[in-house]
Amino acid sequence: MIRVGINGYGTIGKRVAAAVDTQPDMCIVGVSKRTPDHEAAAAVDRGFEMYAPDAEGDAAFSAHDLPVAGTTETLIAESDVIVDATPAGVGAANAPKYASADTPVVFQGGEDATVAPASFCARSNYDETVGRASTRVVSCNTTGLARLLSPLDEQFGVKSVDCTLIRRGGDPTQSDRGPINDIVPDPVTVPSHHASDLRTVLPAVDVMTKGVTVPATLMHLHSLTVRLENAPSREAIRACLHSERRVELVASACGQDSCADLRESAHDRCRQRGDVWENCVWSESISVDGRSLSLLQAVHQQADVVPENVDAIRALAADADAETSRQMTNDALGVGLDSPLA
Amino acid sequence: MIRVGINGYGTIGKRVAAAVDTQPDMCIVGVSKRTPDHEAAAAVDRGFEMYAPDAEGDAAFSAHDLPVAGTTETLIAESDVIVDATPAGVGAANAPKYASADTPVVFQGGEDATVAPASFCARSNYDETVGRASTRVVSCNTTGLARLLSPLDEQFGVKSVDCTLIRRGGDPTQSDRGPINDIVPDPVTVPSHHASDLRTVLPAVDVMTKGVTVPATLMHLHSLTVRLENAPSREAIRACLHSERRVELVASACGQDSCADLRESAHDRCRQRGDVWENCVWSESISVDGRSLSLLQAVHQQADVVPENVDAIRALAADADAETSRQMTNDALGVGLDSPLA
Repeated sequence: MIRVGINGYGTIGKRVAAAVDTQPDMCIVGVSKRTPDHEAAAAVDRGFEMYAPDAEGDAAFSAHDLPVAGTTETLIAESDVIVDATPAGVGAANAPKYASADTPVVFQGGEDATVAPASFCARSNYDETVGRASTRVVSCNTTGLARLLSPLDEQFGVKSVDCTLIRRGGDPTQSDRGPINDIVPDPVTVPSHHASDLRTVLPAVDVMTKGVTVPATLMHLHSLTVRLENAPSREAIRACLHSERRVELVASACGQDSCADLRESAHDRCRQRGDVWENCVWSESISVDGRSLSLLQAVHQQADVVPENVDAIRALAADADAETSRQMTNDALGVGLDSPLA
Repeated sequence: MIRVGINGYGTIGKRVAAAVDTQPDMCIVGVSKRTPDHEAAAAVDRGFEMYAPDAEGDAAFSAHDLPVAGTTETLIAESDVIVDATPAGVGAANAPKYASADTPVVFQGGEDATVAPASFCARSNYDETVGRASTRVVSCNTTGLARLLSPLDEQFGVKSVDCTLIRRGGDPTQSDRGPINDIVPDPVTVPSHHASDLRTVLPAVDVMTKGVTVPATLMHLHSLTVRLENAPSREAIRACLHSERRVELVASACGQDSCADLRESAHDRCRQRGDVWENCVWSESISVDGRSLSLLQAVHQQADVVPENVDAIRALAADADAETSRQMTNDALGVGLDSPLA
């Protein structure tokens, strides 16, 4: 069993903890959190051991009748792997603690790529993390792009990619973010940072990205045109994507008209928090003109990196190869449930 | 003087009427409207003669103390040119009335291209409307694309265009439209109808368009990549666009961060209704990589076709050439005011 500690129990941390808890070869040592809030109470109710950064944190938790098992330092020492899901930038500040405890660590995409010797997408470059002391799971948008482009590149050869990212303004609970009734170039400079982030896992890809932020909280949506080495049929593209368990073909013809429909569908499947781990590619949008492929896909910003974090743990701490790990993760979580189109 | 009648006094009709009223070579015969609402009252207050479709309409206006000068049929007979700004589809139903009165007519982009022998963008194909009995001003999005691509094609040669249109859900008063907190492929099929509409004014252009609708009402935003015959400098692109009075270079560095800033800026310039007639291209977004140009532009869906309607009237009813007409329209309206970047 790989003993996993979760440092940071917010949007990503709580999801990764739940996902790790389903894996047959992993267990949760505990989770570390700064604030004794409703998320902490839910973690304790669920049975996760709670760790606090220091004595002051311990007192704050105790004041709310939330038992604390020890300090974050203890959690790091007792874990085979730490998943650092602290806010962007805090991970880099934590890095020396992991190094001095000699505990391998998975960082998140909010950190600079320099935080770890490798960046990670399980479908694109699993092996580059094997044997490392740490890795960084790339951001939700980059994960969505890498998962789509890796199989396309293998089967048809990707010459270049042009992607406009229609970005959600914030997560549902981030009430202090915008925009309201506006469309915002974000960033206004082109290409956006997503292009260079994608090259941390797919270094050879010729990619242009542009970002625009809109008043929505549920998912990001990517509008892509991909130039290929070969001229595939539309059916060949559909078959290629359909064979990927972390890519779901969805259809307006089945009532999956928008991001909200995709999230509703995940709730209807009894997924906790309505999480969508898979890229959702609209079947009707797949358009092939010679060597040019266009399509629209949605990416759930809170969830798509969750299976990647699980695989990153295995890449750091187990012998499983990439395909074995992905399959274990998918089977335990229930990734890639059949859609009406399957 | 070209005597102009406006049939349909809603979002577009009222703006075109005001714009025609500023032109030195045009006058408004009157406006025709179906419903005696606040927009009708404002038209009468402004001094426009009101026409009603029939006796029933006349009675409805009279019941609100709004004087009626005659029927729509009379307006058509007394006008040198009619601008049909009725709802999409109604223009086509009206077409026989204009034909039997032998009154030239400008239709809007909501009609099918078959409604008239030509489609129209003043910068792209003015001459194709000259000598015709009617024309169709293409939609707001198509106008925004054609205005941008025509000068680029002349100077650098446009090989192909890939555009994602991030579409506003509705105009500010269209409270019955959505989406709320969602991102919607619209249409879900690729390419969107904008590609074929663009070819009605630029038949040779190789264009891919994808549409996505978002919860915003102020403007559309276009994310473009254009492949050129030549490899221009970024400065050459800026100079090319800067020389177009209906294209405005805007800058996040000047506080023009979003669509809302652009509309606020138009209000601050004392433009009625905060109208933005120009394409707004974000200067910082202009990115050139060899023969590939990427940029972000915003288009005000209620306003950008207004100067085009004025030019279309001249193309149907006067001897002015395209450049003379555009300059008259621009000067009278005040199109292309200097921005802080100019």
